[in-house]
Amino acid sequence: MIVKPRDVMPPDARTLPARFYVDHACFMREVEALFRQMWVCAGRLEEIERPGQFVLRDLAGDSIIVTRTATGDVRAFHNVCRHRGTRLCTDAAGTFAGSIQCPYHAWTYGLDGRLLGAPHMDEVPHFRKEDYPLHAVNADTWDGHVFLNVAQSPAPLRSQLADLPDKFRAWRMQDLRLGHRIVYDVRANWKLIIQNYNECLHCPNLHPALNKLSHYLSGENEPLNATYMGGRMDLRPGVDTLSMDGSCPRERLPGLSTEDRRRVYYYAIFPNMLLSLHPDYMMVHTLWPIAPDRTINVCEWHFQPSELAKPGFNAADAIDFWDLTNRQDWHVCELSQAGIASRAYTPGPYSNREDLLFAFDRMIVALHERPV
Amino acid sequence: MIVKPRDVMPPDARTLPARFYVDHACFMREVEALFRQMWVCAGRLEEIERPGQFVLRDLAGDSIIVTRTATGDVRAFHNVCRHRGTRLCTDAAGTFAGSIQCPYHAWTYGLDGRLLGAPHMDEVPHFRKEDYPLHAVNADTWDGHVFLNVAQSPAPLRSQLADLPDKFRAWRMQDLRLGHRIVYDVRANWKLIIQNYNECLHCPNLHPALNKLSHYLSGENEPLNATYMGGRMDLRPGVDTLSMDGSCPRERLPGLSTEDRRRVYYYAIFPNMLLSLHPDYMMVHTLWPIAPDRTINVCEWHFQPSELAKPGFNAADAIDFWDLTNRQDWHVCELSQAGIASRAYTPGPYSNREDLLFAFDRMIVALHERPV
Amino acid sequence: MIVKPRDVMPPDARTLPARFYVDHACFMREVEALFRQMWVCAGRLEEIERPGQFVLRDLAGDSIIVTRTATGDVRAFHNVCRHRGTRLCTDAAGTFAGSIQCPYHAWTYGLDGRLLGAPHMDEVPHFRKEDYPLHAVNADTWDGHVFLNVAQSPAPLRSQLADLPDKFRAWRMQDLRLGHRIVYDVRANWKLIIQNYNECLHCPNLHPALNKLSHYLSGENEPLNATYMGGRMDLRPGVDTLSMDGSCPRERLPGLSTEDRRRVYYYAIFPNMLLSLHPDYMMVHTLWPIAPDRTINVCEWHFQPSELAKPGFNAADAIDFWDLTNRQDWHVCELSQAGIASRAYTPGPYSNREDLLFAFDRMIVALHERPV
Repeated sequence: MIVKPRDVMPPDARTLPARFYVDHACFMREVEALFRQMWVCAGRLEEIERPGQFVLRDLAGDSIIVTRTATGDVRAFHNVCRHRGTRLCTDAAGTFAGSIQCPYHAWTYGLDGRLLGAPHMDEVPHFRKEDYPLHAVNADTWDGHVFLNVAQSPAPLRSQLADLPDKFRAWRMQDLRLGHRIVYDVRANWKLIIQNYNECLHCPNLHPALNKLSHYLSGENEPLNATYMGGRMDLRPGVDTLSMDGSCPRERLPGLSTEDRRRVYYYAIFPNMLLSLHPDYMMVHTLWPIAPDRTINVCEWHFQPSELAKPGFNAADAIDFWDLTNRQDWHVCELSQAGIASRAYTPGPYSNREDLLFAFDRMIVALHERPV
Repeated sequence: MIVKPRDVMPPDARTLPARFYVDHACFMREVEALFRQMWVCAGRLEEIERPGQFVLRDLAGDSIIVTRTATGDVRAFHNVCRHRGTRLCTDAAGTFAGSIQCPYHAWTYGLDGRLLGAPHMDEVPHFRKEDYPLHAVNADTWDGHVFLNVAQSPAPLRSQLADLPDKFRAWRMQDLRLGHRIVYDVRANWKLIIQNYNECLHCPNLHPALNKLSHYLSGENEPLNATYMGGRMDLRPGVDTLSMDGSCPRERLPGLSTEDRRRVYYYAIFPNMLLSLHPDYMMVHTLWPIAPDRTINVCEWHFQPSELAKPGFNAADAIDFWDLTNRQDWHVCELSQAGIASRAYTPGPYSNREDLLFAFDRMIVALHERPV
Repeated sequence: MIVKPRDVMPPDARTLPARFYVDHACFMREVEALFRQMWVCAGRLEEIERPGQFVLRDLAGDSIIVTRTATGDVRAFHNVCRHRGTRLCTDAAGTFAGSIQCPYHAWTYGLDGRLLGAPHMDEVPHFRKEDYPLHAVNADTWDGHVFLNVAQSPAPLRSQLADLPDKFRAWRMQDLRLGHRIVYDVRANWKLIIQNYNECLHCPNLHPALNKLSHYLSGENEPLNATYMGGRMDLRPGVDTLSMDGSCPRERLPGLSTEDRRRVYYYAIFPNMLLSLHPDYMMVHTLWPIAPDRTINVCEWHFQPSELAKPGFNAADAIDFWDLTNRQDWHVCELSQAGIASRAYTPGPYSNREDLLFAFDRMIVALHERPV
């Protein structure tokens, strides 16, 4: 294995001060600047395949309905009636029968958000239905991933994704389908999860199983991009994918190059998506910040439909491997959160193998220094 | 059925901004201005029939002992020893044996609040027992209802009740006795419960059972009074009271007019009493605000003693009907609380059928604009 | 029994205003000025007898490792890795195998806190291991008791203890060993526990069992010392120690004078140790403030090893007696906390028997008036 040395860290390359992880105002600033201004990954198109099918998402306290119109458009709305503010819908997923009706006074909206009916409001002379559509949330998709943006007039998703669609076109993510989902409730700041994801210096100590399949010094990182960061690692000789024993009982994804069949790509797409592309499956984490010290972390494993359709399909080898690794990671993130919250914490020095973390931290600091 | 049209709402008749429902300072302002300045309904005289019999009430964090003296006077005291502040009493109800003794150092008070004994304080030359009576809370009654007022020198209960004693004299509420009590813990602002109570526009959608017994457009509201608001609704032909099937297995209250035997009266008596008078029973809700988004809601059903005394007395028809309706109401209040707390909420337009709510909101806004 | 009268309280001898018990800023001020500046009692040397043996302590949110080096020195460290702040250790007690390793990136520290290993940090040219020892916490001992101090350069433990080592030398506390431990979670301010401990005026009413063994007016208090306060009480004739029936099935501690074999000494050593010395055993409470209204209270009973070694050793007579008394005390402290938190609470008058409390309160007030 050829280990490429990393650039040497500057002398001031230290972890962030504690307030970035424990202070509520800092947390809200990040929620505003990142989770309310950027596109956040909110799941997969297959969850809303048919018109009226919907899922709810909770984005930093705001409940959002994601659904599909009769003509197949993906649409998202705040889950708030325009009459008296009532939540319209409480089921986490389901199918609307052609329209969305408030349980309180029966105000009724189309799947496109238009107000269709408002009992007794016609007695109010100045009332016009067209003034009270559901509050819309921007929605768009990328290769089967659904993204939401609650800002008023955001830049298009394409500009946030930059060159990622080109970079990962060969994986044909739009063809993959959900095999398994685990929701983790992590008592740590969302940034600790992203930082944990973007270095493998911890792998020999924390993840002996992973390190046996993929050497922690293998692979290469890209320099930090404005909206994402990531890199790739190599599978060790004789290892075919990341699974309990390193073997791969599934067909590889079609169209991957010989090199990419021996690599795993790890990309953190800001602010909330961790995309892990394996030779034969895709793992996606989406992060949902709840509090400075709490993040809901939804992990999904996606496979080729041809594999899912096989009798006795069983991906426990990949799911168990990552569930084990995930739990090790979230536990150590929680230990970091607890330690950083201590009055004794002081920023510590980064090694050269934590280059992406240092770059990410600079971006976070710049965001906090930006005038509001 | 003749439906009287309501006055047309002005163009700016919108629901309150979110802060009135979610902000802690707003909540405390309302607690101070309403729950600590006005008389609050705190139960029924029958709960403290005998001298020394007591109940505890928790009014916005203050524990209050309500009891009766040897001479039959209703008295209320803060549940705080004048020595070192200890809670005197922790039982929710019971009977004092002639006096109230602190469990800590045995300071002992009469049922009128006077300090009777304070061990070893006679060794302190400047100490005088008469300086340390229990902190009194004003107490008064109306037709069997007990009211408390924690203000120093409040206007009399009569002035707050205005013409209500005259209006509801015929129901002889003082003769009724408790049949059942349910305590609801509602995750919504106290005002949402009052607003929900004062319009029936939501009845066809939310309460099909209620709407079958009493048409939602029937009846009439009074204009908002300074200290209460309410109106009446009519029972549909063939319906005798609000019960699971609309029949009335009980004698009607004596002394009601022919018209009032066909009506239900709904009065919200500020700040915390919802009085619902049926031809054959009285339902009373008392509201106890805990937090901007939480209210304890005590619901009681009261009947004639002659009915309660009948062998096999069973009022499940009335209790189950309202428990079902209550739960529908509290659920939708909680949905409103959740939606209003969303960043996407904006005040929405009131219909002409929500006239009392708009008037109530104006009163609340005026209260917040008042100099402290 | 000769009862010595106490000095007469001045007319303004009243309990503290409520903010000292309920306000978070007041609480933090006391944590800073007392629990972070003074030596706090943190257990017993016997818990860390062998090199590498450790216990964790949580001091006002900071996790602290207390351990012993190969040369037998007691050392304490913040439980925070100098790399990325991770908690090093989560077990409440155990034994390190010669060094302390971070679970995240395997930074490894000696039992003296020195950084021994930091993988890949040698690639960073400006990095020096000696710059990153564990953050040390001062540790010292007194007759078997371990004390910690998180301040930078505190005065020595000896100066805080003043004449206590002389005063209690005869009890040979260093020879005693743990017989039993109970951890209480008390919903009351830490000061209420100290105040409760320092007067026995409440004993006849709250502790009839204790009062039967030791008359509440017996004994004598010392005037308040800068860092401790306390006094002694006498056992009643025929009573040999504080136990369920007043008999003493154990040998008395050797070296006690005839007088001290008939007394119990109660000393509150600020900020967190309550030392109760009986003729035949030692009881120690350590207080760990969690919030203005919550304190963890660790109670331990220590006996002579010769007694502990006796077949069928059973000290239930002493343990049950104090567990009963403890629970009565904590309950009434919780009642005081609840009452003081009420808006109706006003400071009340102290009796002459509460002289130590008044002196303690003056010290607390002075601390709050001190410039920060």
